[in-house]
Amino acid sequence: MKYSFKNDYAESAHPRILEALIKSNLNQQNGYGLDEYSTEAKSIIKQKIGNYSSTVDFVSGGTQANLIAISAFLRPHESVVAAATGHIFTNESGAIEATGHKVHAIETLNGKIKPVDIQKIIDVHQNKPHQVKQKLVYISNSTELGTIYSKQELIDLYQYCQEKELYLFVDGARLGHALTAETNDLTLEDFGKYTDAFYLGGTKNGALIGEAIIINNENLQKEFGFHLKQKGALLAKGRLLGLQFQELLRDDLYFDLAKHANQQAMKIKNAFGQLGSDFLCETFTNQIFPILTNSQIEKLSTNFDFYVWKKIDEEKSAVRIITSWATTDQIIENFINEIKNLK
Amino acid sequence: MKYSFKNDYAESAHPRILEALIKSNLNQQNGYGLDEYSTEAKSIIKQKIGNYSSTVDFVSGGTQANLIAISAFLRPHESVVAAATGHIFTNESGAIEATGHKVHAIETLNGKIKPVDIQKIIDVHQNKPHQVKQKLVYISNSTELGTIYSKQELIDLYQYCQEKELYLFVDGARLGHALTAETNDLTLEDFGKYTDAFYLGGTKNGALIGEAIIINNENLQKEFGFHLKQKGALLAKGRLLGLQFQELLRDDLYFDLAKHANQQAMKIKNAFGQLGSDFLCETFTNQIFPILTNSQIEKLSTNFDFYVWKKIDEEKSAVRIITSWATTDQIIENFINEIKNLK
Amino acid sequence: MKYSFKNDYAESAHPRILEALIKSNLNQQNGYGLDEYSTEAKSIIKQKIGNYSSTVDFVSGGTQANLIAISAFLRPHESVVAAATGHIFTNESGAIEATGHKVHAIETLNGKIKPVDIQKIIDVHQNKPHQVKQKLVYISNSTELGTIYSKQELIDLYQYCQEKELYLFVDGARLGHALTAETNDLTLEDFGKYTDAFYLGGTKNGALIGEAIIINNENLQKEFGFHLKQKGALLAKGRLLGLQFQELLRDDLYFDLAKHANQQAMKIKNAFGQLGSDFLCETFTNQIFPILTNSQIEKLSTNFDFYVWKKIDEEKSAVRIITSWATTDQIIENFINEIKNLK
Amino acid sequence: MKYSFKNDYAESAHPRILEALIKSNLNQQNGYGLDEYSTEAKSIIKQKIGNYSSTVDFVSGGTQANLIAISAFLRPHESVVAAATGHIFTNESGAIEATGHKVHAIETLNGKIKPVDIQKIIDVHQNKPHQVKQKLVYISNSTELGTIYSKQELIDLYQYCQEKELYLFVDGARLGHALTAETNDLTLEDFGKYTDAFYLGGTKNGALIGEAIIINNENLQKEFGFHLKQKGALLAKGRLLGLQFQELLRDDLYFDLAKHANQQAMKIKNAFGQLGSDFLCETFTNQIFPILTNSQIEKLSTNFDFYVWKKIDEEKSAVRIITSWATTDQIIENFINEIKNLK
Repeated sequence: MKYSFKNDYAESAHPRILEALIKSNLNQQNGYGLDEYSTEAKSIIKQKIGNYSSTVDFVSGGTQANLIAISAFLRPHESVVAAATGHIFTNESGAIEATGHKVHAIETLNGKIKPVDIQKIIDVHQNKPHQVKQKLVYISNSTELGTIYSKQELIDLYQYCQEKELYLFVDGARLGHALTAETNDLTLEDFGKYTDAFYLGGTKNGALIGEAIIINNENLQKEFGFHLKQKGALLAKGRLLGLQFQELLRDDLYFDLAKHANQQAMKIKNAFGQLGSDFLCETFTNQIFPILTNSQIEKLSTNFDFYVWKKIDEEKSAVRIITSWATTDQIIENFINEIKNLK
Repeated sequence: MKYSFKNDYAESAHPRILEALIKSNLNQQNGYGLDEYSTEAKSIIKQKIGNYSSTVDFVSGGTQANLIAISAFLRPHESVVAAATGHIFTNESGAIEATGHKVHAIETLNGKIKPVDIQKIIDVHQNKPHQVKQKLVYISNSTELGTIYSKQELIDLYQYCQEKELYLFVDGARLGHALTAETNDLTLEDFGKYTDAFYLGGTKNGALIGEAIIINNENLQKEFGFHLKQKGALLAKGRLLGLQFQELLRDDLYFDLAKHANQQAMKIKNAFGQLGSDFLCETFTNQIFPILTNSQIEKLSTNFDFYVWKKIDEEKSAVRIITSWATTDQIIENFINEIKNLK
Repeated sequence: MKYSFKNDYAESAHPRILEALIKSNLNQQNGYGLDEYSTEAKSIIKQKIGNYSSTVDFVSGGTQANLIAISAFLRPHESVVAAATGHIFTNESGAIEATGHKVHAIETLNGKIKPVDIQKIIDVHQNKPHQVKQKLVYISNSTELGTIYSKQELIDLYQYCQEKELYLFVDGARLGHALTAETNDLTLEDFGKYTDAFYLGGTKNGALIGEAIIINNENLQKEFGFHLKQKGALLAKGRLLGLQFQELLRDDLYFDLAKHANQQAMKIKNAFGQLGSDFLCETFTNQIFPILTNSQIEKLSTNFDFYVWKKIDEEKSAVRIITSWATTDQIIENFINEIKNLK
Repeated sequence: MKYSFKNDYAESAHPRILEALIKSNLNQQNGYGLDEYSTEAKSIIKQKIGNYSSTVDFVSGGTQANLIAISAFLRPHESVVAAATGHIFTNESGAIEATGHKVHAIETLNGKIKPVDIQKIIDVHQNKPHQVKQKLVYISNSTELGTIYSKQELIDLYQYCQEKELYLFVDGARLGHALTAETNDLTLEDFGKYTDAFYLGGTKNGALIGEAIIINNENLQKEFGFHLKQKGALLAKGRLLGLQFQELLRDDLYFDLAKHANQQAMKIKNAFGQLGSDFLCETFTNQIFPILTNSQIEKLSTNFDFYVWKKIDEEKSAVRIITSWATTDQIIENFINEIKNLK
C-alpha cells in the first residue's frame, strides 16, 4: 500500500492522547464542556496566549469553528473579506453564506492578504445601504498554500482592522505549523494580542478531533455558548475535546509535533531543490508545492500518494506534499531516495 | 465525591472503543468519512436494519444530527411537528428555527405523539399560503421522558405520515435503550422500514462521541453530503466515528450496553416502588422519574447527584435518575441501600 | 354581488391619496426613500409621536415590517414571545422562523399578553445555553381579536421589558383603530415613549399599501437601512410610501378614517347586541366577533360576506365582521336591517 | 432645479396607471393577489409569453423578486452564477447570501455571460461535497451596463443550462427596454421558452411599483405562494400590482414606454457620437455610458444630474445617462444643445 502525503490527518492521534483517554476514562465528569479537563485546558491556553480575559471554547472541526465564530460575530448585513484561496471561500460548501453572510474574495499569489487588498474591496462598496457592509477579515496561518504571516504583517492587518472597525479572525487549523516554521517570528501571545479571535487547530496536529476557538475581543464573547449549542457544536462529552488540548498543551507536545511535521517537509523540499524543481510558492511549513514534470509525477506516484494541485503547462504540474506529526524518518528517507532517482 | 445519576454521558467510552482506537491508530486512512472503518460500519448498519438502499452517515452529536437532517429534508416554507418535550423544541437553543423552520409543539403526558395530535396541528393551518406547511414529524425513542413507542404506534404514525405526505424522523439518541427495554416490541429493522430517516445514538451508549444518521427515503438521500459539510459536521478524521460504530455494532455490544443501563434503572425503580413512591410516568428504559418528598430528596442527595425534574407540590418533586452502560452493580447496591433507609 | 365584511383592505385607497399621487406624479424625486415626500412624512411622524430621536422607515406590508424589524433587532440565539393569536405566530407562514428566530406562543382569551405570561416562558428556559434566549416581546394593538391595550397595560409591559432587558415591539397594522376606539386611553406619543419600536399601518387604514416602522430605541436604529435593502423592502419609488403617509398624517385623516371604521363596527355590534347575541370577546375597534346560530349565519350570508371564525358548538359559531374607512352608512343600514330581521 | 438622468424611476407612474387606479378604486376585491385585476393580468402575461403552463406572481420590487425566486428554487447547498456586475452580486446588500446561497461572480466587459464562463466556475468546484454546487445561472436583460442578449446567446445559455441541470433565471427589471432595442431579436415568447423563470419589470417602466415573476419550469412552481408570503411579498392589496400590469400590458403601452426611453437615449448617444466621445460599452437601450473629459462633465452638470460611473484616467470618466418613459423631447433637445456646446 502506498504511503500518503495527501494530508496531515491520515493517521489518528498521538499516543499520549490515547493514554490520557485511557487514564481518565471512567472519571465521571459534567457534560457540555463543564468537565475538569476542559476547564484546565482553557486555563492553559489563556496562560499561553497571555490574555486572561480571552475566552476559550472547543469544537470538533475547522469548518464548524469558522462558521460558528463568524456567524456569531456578525449582524445580518455584514460580510467577510478573505483570500480567494481561503478555506471558507472555496472549501466549506458555502458554510458562511449558509449562515447569511457574503464572503468577498481577494486574488493572491501566496494565499496572504494585505490592508491594501481589503481597502480595494471596501472602496467599491460605498453605495450604502445597497451594498453589503464589510466587517470581518478572515486570514489563515499557515495559509492554504503553506505560507505564513510575519509579525509585522499581522500587526499591520490588525491596526488596519482597528482603524476601519473590522474584526480580524484567524483560521489556525495549522497555527502550530506556522508558529514553528523556521522563518516565523510570531508567538501564540501575538495571536492573543493582535486578533479579535482565532482558532487553534488540533485535528491536523495530533488530536483525534478538535479545535480551540479563542475570543480576545470582549464584545464578541457575549453569550457565545448559545451559538455553539445552536449550531450543534456543544458535545455532551466535551471532555473529549478538553482532555486532548490539555494533553497537547500542558508541555510543548503541540509545538513539537508541528515542528516535526515542518522538518520532515523541509527535508523533502531540499531534495526537490537539489533535483532543480521550482515551487508554486516558497513555504517553510508542512505543506510544499514542488513543480514536477508529468513523468516525475508518474514515477513518484508508484509508491506514494499526493495531490496534483495545479497544472502549470502541458509538461508540468505543481503537486502538494503534506507531512504530519506521524511522518517517520524512514518514510522521509524512502521518499527522498525516490526523488533522487528522478534525475 | 458523589456518584452522578444526572446523565448517561458522565463517563467516557466503553473500553473496547479505546482498544479499537489504539489498534487502528497509525493506519493511514482517507479523510472525511471515506476511511475503511466508516465503510465497514455503514455496511454493518445497513445489514442490521435490513435495508441496503438506506444511506448512513456519522456526525458528532445529536443536535447536529437533528438540525442537519431536518434542514436538508425541508424546503424553506415547511415546518416540523414535535412533542413539547421534544429535544428540538426545548433543548437545542432554537437550532431548527435557526435553519429557518418552525417547530409546532404538542403537549403530551408521556412525551409520545399520535396521529390525532398531528392532525390537530394540520387542521388549524389550512389557510394557505398564509400559514406554514407541516412536512416532518419528529419523535424521540426512547423519549425525553424515558417512554417508548410500541410497534403498532410506530406503524400507525408512519402510515399516517405516508398518507399525509409527511416525513417521519426519529431521534434515536437513546434508541438502544428503547430497543432493549423489557416492554419493547420494535426492532432495528422496523426503523429501516417504518421511518423516512432516524439516527442511532452513540454518545449516550458507550461511544466517545457519535451518532449515525440513517436515511431510508431515497428522495431524501440526494446530495446529503453537502449538508454535512456545510453545517460543519464532516470530520477530517471521520475514522473516529466509523471505528466506534464498527466496534459497537460488529457484535451485540451496542445492545448489551443499553440493556445493562436499563436493568440497572429497573433495579432502582423497584426499590422506589417498594418504598411506595409514585412515578411521573412509567418507564422501562434507563431514565426513571420517581416522585419523592423534599426530605427524601435531601437525604439521597448526600451521596448521589441527580436532577430535580419537576415540582409536584410543596412537599414533593419528581427527580430524574439516569443510569448508563457504566453504572456498576456496586453503585446500584449502595443506592438501593440508601433508598431502603428512606423508610 | 355581496358586500364583503371579510377585511379592511377590500377597497383600494382613500381619494385624497389618489389626488396626491396625481398632483405629484411628474415631479422628479430621488429613489429609495430619499424623496421629499418621505422626508416630510418622517418629520410629521416624529412630531406626532413626540420623539425626534426616533427613526422612521416605510415598507410595503405588515409581514415585511415584522420580519425585517425583528430579524434586525435580534442576534441569532434570541427569540420572540407573542400571543398564540399573534400574526407572526399563525399567519405569516413562518416568516420569523425563516429569519432564524423561534417564536414562543402564549395562549390567551383575548389576544393580549401580560408580564406574568412572559415570565412563565422565561422561567422554563433557564437552562443556558441549551435553551434559546427570550429577547423580544411582540404585541399587536389592536390585536388580531380586535381588542386593545390600556395605557397602564402598555406601561406595565414596557417596564417589565426594561427590567428584563427585553425589547417591546408593537405590530400596529391597526394602530389607528386602537387609538380611536371609544375605550382607548393611549396616544401615538405613548408609543414613542413606551415601546422600543412599533409600526403604524397604512394598508388597513386607507393607503394603497404601506406601513411605517418607527424605532425609538437608539441601539436598534443602527444601520437599519441595510436590513430594509437586504430583505427587498427598499422600493426604488419609495415616494409612493412617503407620499401616502404624508397625506394621511398631515392633518387628522388617518385617525378620522380609523374612527369611521370603528363607529360603523359599533353600530353593527349594537344591532347584534339588541338581537341578543353574545360575542367571542368584547371589542371597540373595527373587528367584532358575534356568536350566531347556524341559521342566522346562513341568512346573513345571502347578501354579505364575512368569515366564520370559530365553531362554538353544533348550533353556533363566532363570525368576524370587519368594517373599514370605506364602509358607507347605507351599507351599515342595509346590514342592520338584515340583522333585525333575524329575530 | 436640474433635470435628472440618474435613473428611470425619478417620476412616478404613467398617467394611464393613475386613471386605472381611480376608476377601480372602490370596487371591493379579494386580498392577497386573488383580485380580478391580478387574475386578468396573469392571463394576459401568459398569453403574451405564449406559455399557458407558466405561473405569474406580482411583487413590489426587483431585489424582492430576485431573492424570493432564487431562494425558493434552490436547496441549501446550491449556489448561483452571475456576472460580477449582476445586481444580485453588487447591489442588493447580500440579499441572496442572506437566504443562504453563495453567488459566484464572473468578470465581464459588457455585463453578459456565456456558457464558457459558467463552465470555468463549475470546473474549479469539482471537489464534492467540500465545494458548493452550482445550480442557477442569473443574467440580466438588459444588463446593468445597458447591453442586451441576442436570441442565439439566450438559446446557447439555455441549452447549456439544460445539459448541466442548471436553472436559467433572468432579471428583467429592464426587459421592456431590451425587447424594444433596435438591435434586439428576442421576443417575450422567447423568455417563456428559453428560461426556467424570469421577471418582467414594472418599476423602471412606468408603474408605481411592481415586478411580475414568471416561472416556466413546472418543478419550480410548486407552492411558490408560501415563499412570497414568508418573505413579506404577498400584499394585502395585491390589486395594486395586478391592476398596473393589466393596464401596461392590455395593449402595447409597456413596450411603447420602453421604446420611447430607448429612442431618447439613442438621440443623446448620437449627440455624444458627433462630439467624438467614446463609450464604455455600446448600448441600444435606455442606458448609455459616454466617456467624457472632466471639463465636459463639469459643464454638463450645471443643468443636468447623472452619475459619474467609472474613472478612466486622470482626464476622463465614463458617465451614466438613463432616460425613461417620461423623458420629454424638450428635455432631450435642451440636453443635446448643451452637448453640442461642449465642442
